Amino acid sequence: MSAKLTAAHKRFFKKTNIGHLATLMEDGSPQVTPVWLDLEGETILVNTTDDQQKTANVARDPRVAISVVDAKDPYDAIYIRGRVIERRHKGAEAHIHKLSRKYLGERRFPWGSPGEVRVILVIRPEKIDTLD
Amino acid sequence: MSAKLTAAHKRFFKKTNIGHLATLMEDGSPQVTPVWLDLEGETILVNTTDDQQKTANVARDPRVAISVVDAKDPYDAIYIRGRVIERRHKGAEAHIHKLSRKYLGERRFPWGSPGEVRVILVIRPEKIDTLD
Repeated sequence: MSAKLTAAHKRFFKKTNIGHLATLMEDGSPQVTPVWLDLEGETILVNTTDDQQKTANVARDPRVAISVVDAKDPYDAIYIRGRVIERRHKGAEAHIHKLSRKYLGERRFPWGSPGEVRVILVIRPEKIDTLD
Repeated sequence: MSAKLTAAHKRFFKKTNIGHLATLMEDGSPQVTPVWLDLEGETILVNTTDDQQKTANVARDPRVAISVVDAKDPYDAIYIRGRVIERRHKGAEAHIHKLSRKYLGERRFPWGSPGEVRVILVIRPEKIDTLD
């Protein structure tokens, strides 16, 4: 099952909106945290690190949800249910700098910690809703 | 298990920040949608309607999570895991108008639908984290 992001959906991800990514804890309860967002074709990319709770969660159960409101109009929103189809280390370091340029206007991500290993969560949307 | 909201935590809920509430679908996958927020003592209040997916979800499994970023500084955030301890119909109609005054500056909630039944989800925090 897969749902296609339209151009209207994709604009939420092209702007500097914060997303809220829900994952599942080991006991099946939800966790939700703010994340930066990127697009790659029909997938949504979230950049995190190997030691984050959300990374352990999606390794165990790939089912996720994302909610995004438009920073300029909080009553324009999109929420998605989907699945992490890949945890990608290759290029994840360069990708966090790309997001840093997008969100902070800074060439290099300023908040890294020594030794942390970045990873891209590649998310395939399965159900897409908007606040209309 | 219960976690206490400090004054620093509570300010996220007193401001007009949008929250993102994660609930569990029948198959255990997460759903997350934007919500208005209120406080009542040590609990978080979310006002929704009986016919919303999130209401059915928490009736089945009360475990939820909430993520809030400060609208003025998206790198100031709080995320909470907790549990719906009550679904309260009494006062829920008056409460949506209260939230309408807080978030929209409008005396009456402008987006109601005929026949919808409002309900307050009363959420007890069990784990509280902040982005620091």
